[in-house]
Amino acid sequence: MNKDKPNLALGAHQQPFSGIPTFMRLPATRDLKDVEVAIVGIPFDSGTSYRSGTRFGPRKIRESSLMLWGYNTVLEVNPTKTLNVIDYGDVDVVPVDIKATNKAITDEVGVVLNSNSKVISLGGDHSVSFPLLQAHKEKYGPVAVIHFDSHPDTWNEEYPDQPYSHGTPFIRSLENGLIDVEAYVQVGIRGSVESSKDYEDSRRLGARLITIQEAYNFGIPSLINEIRKIVGNRPVYLSFDIDSIDPAYAPGTGTPEVGGFTSYEMLQMIRGLHGLNFVGFDMVEVSPPYDNNDITSLLAANLVFEFLSLFALMKQE
Amino acid sequence: MNKDKPNLALGAHQQPFSGIPTFMRLPATRDLKDVEVAIVGIPFDSGTSYRSGTRFGPRKIRESSLMLWGYNTVLEVNPTKTLNVIDYGDVDVVPVDIKATNKAITDEVGVVLNSNSKVISLGGDHSVSFPLLQAHKEKYGPVAVIHFDSHPDTWNEEYPDQPYSHGTPFIRSLENGLIDVEAYVQVGIRGSVESSKDYEDSRRLGARLITIQEAYNFGIPSLINEIRKIVGNRPVYLSFDIDSIDPAYAPGTGTPEVGGFTSYEMLQMIRGLHGLNFVGFDMVEVSPPYDNNDITSLLAANLVFEFLSLFALMKQE
Amino acid sequence: MNKDKPNLALGAHQQPFSGIPTFMRLPATRDLKDVEVAIVGIPFDSGTSYRSGTRFGPRKIRESSLMLWGYNTVLEVNPTKTLNVIDYGDVDVVPVDIKATNKAITDEVGVVLNSNSKVISLGGDHSVSFPLLQAHKEKYGPVAVIHFDSHPDTWNEEYPDQPYSHGTPFIRSLENGLIDVEAYVQVGIRGSVESSKDYEDSRRLGARLITIQEAYNFGIPSLINEIRKIVGNRPVYLSFDIDSIDPAYAPGTGTPEVGGFTSYEMLQMIRGLHGLNFVGFDMVEVSPPYDNNDITSLLAANLVFEFLSLFALMKQE
Amino acid sequence: MNKDKPNLALGAHQQPFSGIPTFMRLPATRDLKDVEVAIVGIPFDSGTSYRSGTRFGPRKIRESSLMLWGYNTVLEVNPTKTLNVIDYGDVDVVPVDIKATNKAITDEVGVVLNSNSKVISLGGDHSVSFPLLQAHKEKYGPVAVIHFDSHPDTWNEEYPDQPYSHGTPFIRSLENGLIDVEAYVQVGIRGSVESSKDYEDSRRLGARLITIQEAYNFGIPSLINEIRKIVGNRPVYLSFDIDSIDPAYAPGTGTPEVGGFTSYEMLQMIRGLHGLNFVGFDMVEVSPPYDNNDITSLLAANLVFEFLSLFALMKQE
Amino acid sequence: MNKDKPNLALGAHQQPFSGIPTFMRLPATRDLKDVEVAIVGIPFDSGTSYRSGTRFGPRKIRESSLMLWGYNTVLEVNPTKTLNVIDYGDVDVVPVDIKATNKAITDEVGVVLNSNSKVISLGGDHSVSFPLLQAHKEKYGPVAVIHFDSHPDTWNEEYPDQPYSHGTPFIRSLENGLIDVEAYVQVGIRGSVESSKDYEDSRRLGARLITIQEAYNFGIPSLINEIRKIVGNRPVYLSFDIDSIDPAYAPGTGTPEVGGFTSYEMLQMIRGLHGLNFVGFDMVEVSPPYDNNDITSLLAANLVFEFLSLFALMKQE
Amino acid sequence: MNKDKPNLALGAHQQPFSGIPTFMRLPATRDLKDVEVAIVGIPFDSGTSYRSGTRFGPRKIRESSLMLWGYNTVLEVNPTKTLNVIDYGDVDVVPVDIKATNKAITDEVGVVLNSNSKVISLGGDHSVSFPLLQAHKEKYGPVAVIHFDSHPDTWNEEYPDQPYSHGTPFIRSLENGLIDVEAYVQVGIRGSVESSKDYEDSRRLGARLITIQEAYNFGIPSLINEIRKIVGNRPVYLSFDIDSIDPAYAPGTGTPEVGGFTSYEMLQMIRGLHGLNFVGFDMVEVSPPYDNNDITSLLAANLVFEFLSLFALMKQE
Repeated sequence: MNKDKPNLALGAHQQPFSGIPTFMRLPATRDLKDVEVAIVGIPFDSGTSYRSGTRFGPRKIRESSLMLWGYNTVLEVNPTKTLNVIDYGDVDVVPVDIKATNKAITDEVGVVLNSNSKVISLGGDHSVSFPLLQAHKEKYGPVAVIHFDSHPDTWNEEYPDQPYSHGTPFIRSLENGLIDVEAYVQVGIRGSVESSKDYEDSRRLGARLITIQEAYNFGIPSLINEIRKIVGNRPVYLSFDIDSIDPAYAPGTGTPEVGGFTSYEMLQMIRGLHGLNFVGFDMVEVSPPYDNNDITSLLAANLVFEFLSLFALMKQE
Repeated sequence: MNKDKPNLALGAHQQPFSGIPTFMRLPATRDLKDVEVAIVGIPFDSGTSYRSGTRFGPRKIRESSLMLWGYNTVLEVNPTKTLNVIDYGDVDVVPVDIKATNKAITDEVGVVLNSNSKVISLGGDHSVSFPLLQAHKEKYGPVAVIHFDSHPDTWNEEYPDQPYSHGTPFIRSLENGLIDVEAYVQVGIRGSVESSKDYEDSRRLGARLITIQEAYNFGIPSLINEIRKIVGNRPVYLSFDIDSIDPAYAPGTGTPEVGGFTSYEMLQMIRGLHGLNFVGFDMVEVSPPYDNNDITSLLAANLVFEFLSLFALMKQE
Repeated sequence: MNKDKPNLALGAHQQPFSGIPTFMRLPATRDLKDVEVAIVGIPFDSGTSYRSGTRFGPRKIRESSLMLWGYNTVLEVNPTKTLNVIDYGDVDVVPVDIKATNKAITDEVGVVLNSNSKVISLGGDHSVSFPLLQAHKEKYGPVAVIHFDSHPDTWNEEYPDQPYSHGTPFIRSLENGLIDVEAYVQVGIRGSVESSKDYEDSRRLGARLITIQEAYNFGIPSLINEIRKIVGNRPVYLSFDIDSIDPAYAPGTGTPEVGGFTSYEMLQMIRGLHGLNFVGFDMVEVSPPYDNNDITSLLAANLVFEFLSLFALMKQE
Repeated sequence: MNKDKPNLALGAHQQPFSGIPTFMRLPATRDLKDVEVAIVGIPFDSGTSYRSGTRFGPRKIRESSLMLWGYNTVLEVNPTKTLNVIDYGDVDVVPVDIKATNKAITDEVGVVLNSNSKVISLGGDHSVSFPLLQAHKEKYGPVAVIHFDSHPDTWNEEYPDQPYSHGTPFIRSLENGLIDVEAYVQVGIRGSVESSKDYEDSRRLGARLITIQEAYNFGIPSLINEIRKIVGNRPVYLSFDIDSIDPAYAPGTGTPEVGGFTSYEMLQMIRGLHGLNFVGFDMVEVSPPYDNNDITSLLAANLVFEFLSLFALMKQE
Repeated sequence: MNKDKPNLALGAHQQPFSGIPTFMRLPATRDLKDVEVAIVGIPFDSGTSYRSGTRFGPRKIRESSLMLWGYNTVLEVNPTKTLNVIDYGDVDVVPVDIKATNKAITDEVGVVLNSNSKVISLGGDHSVSFPLLQAHKEKYGPVAVIHFDSHPDTWNEEYPDQPYSHGTPFIRSLENGLIDVEAYVQVGIRGSVESSKDYEDSRRLGARLITIQEAYNFGIPSLINEIRKIVGNRPVYLSFDIDSIDPAYAPGTGTPEVGGFTSYEMLQMIRGLHGLNFVGFDMVEVSPPYDNNDITSLLAANLVFEFLSLFALMKQE
Repeated sequence: MNKDKPNLALGAHQQPFSGIPTFMRLPATRDLKDVEVAIVGIPFDSGTSYRSGTRFGPRKIRESSLMLWGYNTVLEVNPTKTLNVIDYGDVDVVPVDIKATNKAITDEVGVVLNSNSKVISLGGDHSVSFPLLQAHKEKYGPVAVIHFDSHPDTWNEEYPDQPYSHGTPFIRSLENGLIDVEAYVQVGIRGSVESSKDYEDSRRLGARLITIQEAYNFGIPSLINEIRKIVGNRPVYLSFDIDSIDPAYAPGTGTPEVGGFTSYEMLQMIRGLHGLNFVGFDMVEVSPPYDNNDITSLLAANLVFEFLSLFALMKQE
């Protein structure tokens, strides 16, 4: 960012109530020269099966990110100083057509990845992870996936003859070879399902499905080790559905499931993944119309800050 | 209603806080024998260009309708006693695919119309009016249309190469000959538009576009006469976008426009249309997540009650 | 349910945003033939001492139950396939007269119990448990009671000369011999009380009062064992006040008490009670006007789903 | 108020965000010596047929009244300087027993009236007007009544064998001779009713029922004259149901009816009644849980301020 | 705006749910070369006497402005095409120190005015109008002022020894010769005040104080003429307190006063002022934490759009 | 409290929905004779750096305190019977001037302390702790401080040349010798900061800064011991920022930080401090406009009840 051009995101001495909200007051630009990480919004919510509203996720996560002062006291890094990070703005989604939207996502994110920037995307509902994984596959080949969620998202179809929706991104990704099936872990799965086949299907497709009960039986530190063991040093993509967290901590989501992780547990879990070979992150299913005074978008912004910190630690090492 | 089959919508002596909410506690059934009017929900909101949430419109309008006690003191009719009315439930919409949704609407509503029942549909965003008009055209031929709205909804495309969305139902209907272009009136149009062409386009396509300024210059009684004159004794379909009313009275909508009608004015306007040859009604763009303690859905339920009363008066005459 | 009569609760391919909300889309009927479990709403809130609004509990729990897909992955049972379950609708309560309401509850629930169906009732405030226990006593004799709550509800009177209110159902039940006093356990009790006599009174009446401190000192697994030991193989009724859970997880209630259970702990606790000889359940004090985007009603619906699962397991064994 | 006893309602230089909220920072006391008007709260909401919550009406109206600075610029009077006014606190209502509550209201308000203070009461639902009129009848004999409402409240029973509820206070008052039947006017009546008999019943009982259509056909100035003509110089009691006003202006109420008065119209209407021989006022059906950022309680507080001003003008004349 | 630098405010085909919200997607810059109008945010709310929160006014008005498509159908102008308009971002306010804030406002806005750009500022509470008028006085000499408000804001002090707050900007401006006292009109004044002196003081200082009663007695067209007559062809500054509008239409404000203008009336009033010699505008007292689903910020954004249109018409003429 | 003067806070048999809300229905008075503890409100929110609204903290905490019945079942004490406690009302704060406010706080609280009453103050934002510590220093000399918070609040300046704000009270207190630097412990610190210097600065100034990670590594019982060891038998002041608790439990605050304590942990922690030599308490940063149905103010009221109980135990011992 040019010093001569004052950053209008600043204002009122950088107090969070002031200024035009880009993510963490980063420059809003599509100039990708020397960019190492781009924050990309994907305001699409037609893929949801219950409450819509995630189209406002990117905007609200950006706004809540103004509470982030920059230095990560646990991971001991200042990611936006360590890395050249920008706010790339939003993908041109098409609410009436998920196929057109998927193509727009893969294309636009492909442009960023091809510039050698990494991407952290802000959803949007979970349907966006399929086109995101497509773009990452084109750049990196099949990737390991760490998938935090309360639902396996490996249904075949939510509606007759409709392959795409927020319940199907991972079956589609597995079918299309986007995921390294040896290293695909789902964490936090819970809630009622249609039949006992639901979990079986996910496991048969190759997922290491860890329910919330298993997770708590492990305990967070052992669970971290389990995830690290599954992923190893493969290139890994982390897909984060905010409904993996309990609705008390993250009410602002489309299909909440009771009995989930606390915010502290989740922060520790993400921090515990430092040193893995991350190639991309998404933060999905934040639905501001159903939030409670922004506690969900604030938690999402903090988790994205941890994602940025994990990228920054990779550079430092 | 058969005494042998207790109506479970009843309960607690019919106080509105009690029971399972069908519209006005009408029987929920798909048995169309002898039915004269069917209430049909269309919970589709992927067509909107701003705030989603109208997928919850049908459910919430049904709930608010429990405040309706049955007798219309102004039009002096008890429509659910005069007519055999049912709650038909919801059309199987497909949030990820507006074309599949449009087909489902035209097909399902076609089944009802072919049974010789009339339909009052509860949206859903305004994109549903195109398939609704298709179904009515198939039954009645091109119909006159009274269209209350703040927007003309005659844009060509909101997204590249996407003919369908909540900004285009009336251009599509006009192009497809669903509307009797001699008798198409838009009432309450206002707000900023992309260019001076917007209103010109609507008028060139044949609409009698009455802005809110014109409406108030007429005054409600003269405006009623103007509408009646345009429609005459043609078969007429009334499409009601709740955003024709001011956001103070109807905040729960996706694309609110300030400076609109009051609830009293609108009730008087609808009542003033008695005696026209109505063939169908829709009530669209009620978005409960953005409502204020149900005042919008309550207003919508009352307007639907007026629609029912207009149907009932047609039978009495 | 007759195949010829389509279930109107369905709609939009059973996505939870669509259809008329009966509990889990079960048939709404008062035909009790072969019914094994009936869901019964009791929309009464005049018994509360602080915030009213539980009259909307049954309706909102039904709506949130549409998120339940049917199979319980922890208890490994699909209760609505295993059992013949119906939604019976609501009892005709009388807000101005608690005695008339109590009689209506005992009578209506008595009809269901006498048909050999079991009942899961949805409150309403906690005053409804006294007439519910009366009905169960008439069918089963004095029953063991597992009572989750933050308050003992064994006050003598909240208002002069008024025996009935939401602070007194268990003293009244004990006085009237509805409870097997050898097997009455209260779990989660906390918060300030009028005097040290409050807990003493409850214990003197026979309750095994377990405070939240005791509960956490046990730990959930030992606490489950303690409860099982108290109840043994007696016929047991479970009364669930949602305020036993912390307000972070269940804000939508009339008299919230801070420092309670988490949703995960509670789900595990209920599941841990499988195999007991349950004769009835109630879920009370869910107050939707004070909820936060339905997280309380969703938790209540999930707990009722666990209750149904416990009934289903009894049949399988 | 004694200078030696600082008024704790004051604080922060009397800015409305500060201090313990008595009505308009008046002294909270039950010492009735020389008191000319007492503000009396009646936090009872078991009489409502839809949404409860008016039990919080008195508290919230008091809080919103802190925005009132004291001088009425239209009626040109400072009522709390002209009159000796106190905040009497709340009547001891009994939510589970409307008969006990009615008696408590009549008794407590009777004490105040017998001290020669007048009473302005803050509800509570509209059932409280029957015991209030009883107390006023005992003091003044049958009184003229000006009744602003959207409902006639002259149903015989809302529940079988239950004479008292918020739908019946005026039939009970008429039956018991509390109202001077020659001078009973209802203003603003609207909405659907059970049958054409509803309005006929009210009129047959003696009410001059003025619907909202009649009201608007009169115009506010003529309507004021009509009311003044009906009442004449009789002792008159004004009963104000906030749902006479449109839900856009007064959403915080239990049984809202669309198509009502605006706040400006109502303020002008009340001010136009100056000079009548008022003996009492009530402000009922304000339900804070359903309000929108206190706009309803603020409007109620302003209307109560107009009531106080009318009393003050009576003294000045 | 340079084509090479894509405007990140765009996104998703310019649908309002997408992109980083500058006002009307205008470029966010402090480069004032050739700029004709600058939108300047002033997020200061320590001057309020009741509810704080206007510090979020500028951000939320920007967000709601994305609903504005560009062409004004009533005034027949596209202001952002006619004029070179930018979003200047926010002034660096100091919440703990109103004097430091006032200086920052006068200085920063002075920089803009000295570049020969005009300013439309987005508050913030009404205290900001004093430093804004100071900056305009320095550029233009004493200006005529059209002041829409429910309060005269000419109190001497709200707190002992504190000259500045949101109740005093106009007495300070008059004392300091910032206003052409021959041409200062206040419109919409109402509500209770401390004493009859309040209005007298305002008038004695020179204001033409028009109460809401006077305004309605004029009628909107005559009122417009009255204002035009007062102002003549003097350079005129318009200060707009959103609480001039009724809380039904504008609940999101700090000190709401019931009985105000409707949104339609106000839009017509502003449009009726075309052709006056405007030198500046402010839009103050929009308090998003107290808004109802953004209806207040949307109305404010629409009014700012009318201000822009008035500037654009001045250029065309 | 004199029996002759009925406590108007009572009402409706002391049910929490009734009466004028002083803290726990204590007498509202400034008569300090024989008073042992005074509850003092400080409705100041200009010191916050993000969301304002804590000016309504005192009023709302008082209202929520009506849920407290009096007897502490864990600490086994009835504090308002053991001690003579009053509600002193609010300090006269000046929103536009933090220095004038600080002086008013120190002076008014000094009056109370000099009467030999202790003070529990209800904020307001955290800037109030500096003047509170000044008043306590004048009475007790430098005090030990237990400081629960997510932020160290030892920034030098949030705005240029502004020593006072809610980010600086403890650096100011340390610089001014108000705190016994040997015994100053911060508990629960977390969240991103400007740089690694933030925590270093706090520690260099003398604080024993315990992060949330350290706290959980200790476990609550050991953490209690650690705090007790630091404080010893020194006179100790406890400053409680509600944002030390997780936003799930305490959303109603100005600068929430995710990943904090639960309500149960915090209650146990406060109770574990019994027997320390407390001289004062504050409860700050409760911001009702951002609360969720009062769960934050209810938690705050409960914590204040624990503070009262700690004072009461000191007297009993």
